Amino acid sequence: MKNVLVDDVIKRLTRSVHLEETVDGLLSGSGQTKVTGIVVTFIASHEVIDQAIQKGANLIISHEGSFYSHHRDDGKQRQDPVCKEKSRLINDSGMAIYRFHDHPHRYEPDAITNGLVKKLGWEEFVLEKNKTSTIVSIPEATVQEIANRVKEKLSIPFVRITGDASMTCSRIGLLAGYRGGGQTVIPLMGTKEVEVIIAGEGPEWEAPEYVRDAVYQKRNKALMFIGHSESEEPGMSDVAELLSSAFPAIPVHFAASRPLFQWI
Amino acid sequence: MKNVLVDDVIKRLTRSVHLEETVDGLLSGSGQTKVTGIVVTFIASHEVIDQAIQKGANLIISHEGSFYSHHRDDGKQRQDPVCKEKSRLINDSGMAIYRFHDHPHRYEPDAITNGLVKKLGWEEFVLEKNKTSTIVSIPEATVQEIANRVKEKLSIPFVRITGDASMTCSRIGLLAGYRGGGQTVIPLMGTKEVEVIIAGEGPEWEAPEYVRDAVYQKRNKALMFIGHSESEEPGMSDVAELLSSAFPAIPVHFAASRPLFQWI
Repeated sequence: MKNVLVDDVIKRLTRSVHLEETVDGLLSGSGQTKVTGIVVTFIASHEVIDQAIQKGANLIISHEGSFYSHHRDDGKQRQDPVCKEKSRLINDSGMAIYRFHDHPHRYEPDAITNGLVKKLGWEEFVLEKNKTSTIVSIPEATVQEIANRVKEKLSIPFVRITGDASMTCSRIGLLAGYRGGGQTVIPLMGTKEVEVIIAGEGPEWEAPEYVRDAVYQKRNKALMFIGHSESEEPGMSDVAELLSSAFPAIPVHFAASRPLFQWI
Repeated sequence: MKNVLVDDVIKRLTRSVHLEETVDGLLSGSGQTKVTGIVVTFIASHEVIDQAIQKGANLIISHEGSFYSHHRDDGKQRQDPVCKEKSRLINDSGMAIYRFHDHPHRYEPDAITNGLVKKLGWEEFVLEKNKTSTIVSIPEATVQEIANRVKEKLSIPFVRITGDASMTCSRIGLLAGYRGGGQTVIPLMGTKEVEVIIAGEGPEWEAPEYVRDAVYQKRNKALMFIGHSESEEPGMSDVAELLSSAFPAIPVHFAASRPLFQWI
C-alpha cells in the first residue's frame, strides 16, 4: 500500500480552494512524514496532543493555532513557561500540526457553518448561504425552545441570550466562531430581517447591545452566544469524516474539546 | 450662578490627559449647550437616553459608543432601522453624548481599573498598577470564594471560569473591559506569575485556552470572565462622583446597565 504523507493529506484538504493569504499551514512537523494516524480537532490543546500521541497519530488537523493567537506569534513560545512546555512536547513527539482554518471557511458552502447547520438538523430549512452566515427559516419556536435544541444537539451546558426567551421566531442567522460581531450581525438583523442570531462569540458591546436596543424598540430580535468551539466543532467533525473516506487505511479520530468554561 | 456648558464638563474630564489619537469626543449635541443634568453610564443605550430625557439631563457621559462599534461608523446609522430610530431620538432630544473611553483609561492610575479594584474592596492588597492591569495579592482564597465575592460586590448573576474552582490562590490580575486577550493575559500569568485573571471579556481561543493548557500542565492558574460592562461600571460610577463634586449645582446620575445576558 502506498504511503500517505502529511503533504498528501494537506493537498486533499486544500485542493478546492486557492488562498493568496492565509493563517493555514504546517505549524510543526514535516510534510514528508508518513502518516500513521490523524486527529482532527478544534484546537490542539496540550491534552489533545497527548491523546494523539497515545493513539499513535502523528498528524493533527486543528482549526485554531497552537499558541493562543489567530496569527502566529513564535516569540511567545520561547519565553512563556506554558508555551515552552507545549513546544517541547510538540518538538519531542515530532507531531505534525496543520492549521486548517481559512480553507474550510472558503469551501462552497463554508464547511464549518455547514457542519453547524447539519448538526442542528436544519438543512431542510436553509434559505440563504452567505459568505459568513447561513439563514434558515424554521417552524415557529420560542427562543427558549431554540436554546434547548442547541444545547441538546451540541451538548452545551449553557448559552448566553440577549432578548426575551419567550419570544417566538422562525428566521435565524447562524454565524460560526468569532463572527458574532456588529459588522456581521447588524446587516443580518437590519437588512436581511433575521430575528435570532446564533453565533459562537463576539464583543459584548457590539451585537448584544444592538439587540438590547432593538428589543427596547419592541422589535422581534434576540441573540444567542453558544461558544466559539461549540459552534465550530461540528464542521471539524465533518472534516474527520472526509479524511476517513479519503484515506481509508489511516485511523482518523475526532477529538472533541471539553467545555472551556464553568458557569458559577 | 455661572452657566456650565457641555464643553466645561469635557474640559474637567480631560484636563489631566493629552491624547493625540482617541475615540473620545462629542458624538452628538453641542459643546456650547448649557448643562441641565448629567447621566454617566457604561453605554448610552436607547433606554438610558430615554431615562436621561425623563430626568431632565441633556448630557450623557458614555464609556462606549452609541452605535455598537469601538470606532465611529456613521454610515450604519443611515441604513439600519435600529440605528435610525436611535439616531432620531438623539437628534430630536438634542442630547449631547460625550464618549469618555480613552481618557479615563489614561488617568493615573487608570480610573476604570481602579474603580473595579475599589469596588472589590482590594485597594489595600494592590501590588502593582500597570498600564493595562492591576495585580493584587489577597489573603489566600479559593477561586469559588473569589467568584462569590465578585458576584456579590458587582451584582453579577454568573461568571465564566476556566480552571478549577476549588484551587487556592492569592495573586490576582485585574483587567477591565476587553483586556482579557492573550496579549495582556499571557505575560501576566507567565512573567508576572499571576495565578488568577479577572477580566471583562476576551476571545475564547486565546486566554481561556492558555489557562486550559496551564491547568493540564498542573500549574496553579485560573481565569474568570465577569462581563465587559460589569468590569467597567464601577469606574464609570466613580466618574459620576467626580462630576458631582466638580459641578455641585448640576444633578448627576449614574445609570447602571441591566444584565446584558440571560444564561439558559
